[in-house]
Amino acid sequence: MYDVIVIGAGPAGLNAAIYARRAGLSVIVLEKMGAGGAITKSWEVENYLGFPSIKGMELAEKFAEHGAKYAEIRSFEEIEKIERRKDGAFIVKSSGGEYEGRAIVIATGSSYKKLDVPGESKFNGKGVSYCATCDGYFFRGKKVAVVGGGNTALTDAAYLHDVGCDAVMIHRRNEFRAEKAVQQKIFDRKIKALWDNVVLEIKGETKVSGLRLKNVKTGAESDLAVDGVFVAVGEIPQNEIAKVLGVELTEAGYVKTDKRQRTNIPLVYAAGDITGEMKQLIVAAAQGAIAATSAWEDLKK
Amino acid sequence: MYDVIVIGAGPAGLNAAIYARRAGLSVIVLEKMGAGGAITKSWEVENYLGFPSIKGMELAEKFAEHGAKYAEIRSFEEIEKIERRKDGAFIVKSSGGEYEGRAIVIATGSSYKKLDVPGESKFNGKGVSYCATCDGYFFRGKKVAVVGGGNTALTDAAYLHDVGCDAVMIHRRNEFRAEKAVQQKIFDRKIKALWDNVVLEIKGETKVSGLRLKNVKTGAESDLAVDGVFVAVGEIPQNEIAKVLGVELTEAGYVKTDKRQRTNIPLVYAAGDITGEMKQLIVAAAQGAIAATSAWEDLKK
Repeated sequence: MYDVIVIGAGPAGLNAAIYARRAGLSVIVLEKMGAGGAITKSWEVENYLGFPSIKGMELAEKFAEHGAKYAEIRSFEEIEKIERRKDGAFIVKSSGGEYEGRAIVIATGSSYKKLDVPGESKFNGKGVSYCATCDGYFFRGKKVAVVGGGNTALTDAAYLHDVGCDAVMIHRRNEFRAEKAVQQKIFDRKIKALWDNVVLEIKGETKVSGLRLKNVKTGAESDLAVDGVFVAVGEIPQNEIAKVLGVELTEAGYVKTDKRQRTNIPLVYAAGDITGEMKQLIVAAAQGAIAATSAWEDLKK
Repeated sequence: MYDVIVIGAGPAGLNAAIYARRAGLSVIVLEKMGAGGAITKSWEVENYLGFPSIKGMELAEKFAEHGAKYAEIRSFEEIEKIERRKDGAFIVKSSGGEYEGRAIVIATGSSYKKLDVPGESKFNGKGVSYCATCDGYFFRGKKVAVVGGGNTALTDAAYLHDVGCDAVMIHRRNEFRAEKAVQQKIFDRKIKALWDNVVLEIKGETKVSGLRLKNVKTGAESDLAVDGVFVAVGEIPQNEIAKVLGVELTEAGYVKTDKRQRTNIPLVYAAGDITGEMKQLIVAAAQGAIAATSAWEDLKK
């Protein structure tokens, strides 16, 4: 019987494990992929305080090593079943075993919707990005396209403009679905939008050099030279486990927590991207620390 | 005219500067001491994700270097005057100059009240600690004293007990002022308290080996062998600047913020220990990132 079962070994889950163990709790981390989280896919990270510039994979390895000093991290174990026993204990069945825990930290993250076009995965981290706050600064002085029409896409375009990028929007419809106040940001900055256009292909040699576009109304195809493309067509919170546990979600599918990372279900906490807060390493890690400390408070009353 | 003036160059202030600059804002950091914050006084840090073990000073230097890549950090500049002009701009006069800014991030931190006894500063970081969550794990299996009688002192003692320390409380009165629920933690764990006792001296050779105590009722002095002493007799939020700006404070004197680190005053944000949240590096840094992002949202509407 573990005091805490952490689900997900990104920065939130790993830091929850560190803080839980340091507080004297027994803890195990279950991760369906390898440890490290989404950052493993980032080419370079410049905004995790203490590391002015580091490869995403290298930082992920440092996080994982740090976590492994405190807790067993069981990678490549997908959760198959999770239920609560009458005595309150959680029973977690994974592809690799069965675990009993007194508390659960959900740190399952979220993923970005893909365009699913040629070049997208090839140039991921080489001009293709899903996070303007993370990668925008690399593209200052350069031309970038932002694909999407929602709040995130428009906020990203405004952010990239302010960073010093020459930003253009690409949207499959002829109006944005973002809130009016967010749309105003685009108009105020005179950011151009290519309406009714979809991306057919992301092109380049070793990194992105341009996009092949198609106007869905006229059928005409065109080329657009860009150094980077920010894809902001939606996110998919990994909320399957939260749902099974009966945790309250926001309309967008993220886990609702209070300031101390408690969910509406006693002894269930959430941290990191699954909470829908700012998708930044430092924020996820902080939430993990807070979640574990709350678990300690609740378990060791 | 800077977009953002950050006051305080601990992890919260430095990370606010990094995120502000990366968002295209101009930013300057004013710090009355050297850059790095309270962590410079920590002997060793094991719970900042990515650094399994590092000297406090070394980590502070990494933070400062990282910050200096993005913003000018003016160390040893004490704020002498801060006021708001009719056009909304903040005018900050320091010992080193005068600065105009459109927004302010308060990251002034808090300090711990000292016992002011011989040995306290000599053994700071060598057995004397002010933060159980930070340093408790170093003392597992060892005997520690916790000095104080409030919520923090009792919670620290419970935490240290759970970590695996042999904890004893030292309190100058014959009852705790902590909440009953917190007192219960001490009773449940059968943690002993030395009532009516004050610390006269912290003793040791190269590190703490014991305390000289005095019973304030009987006047009797005694020795107590311990490996560590956790001082939890109060904190002093550095809220002078917040007060001048008219920012709303909690009863304990910390700056009230919403989840996005906004205070009640437009374009004034707070991050780090001054907010009274969990006093952890990772939390302070995360709050700095969020504060800067909020400033960008508000300034670049």
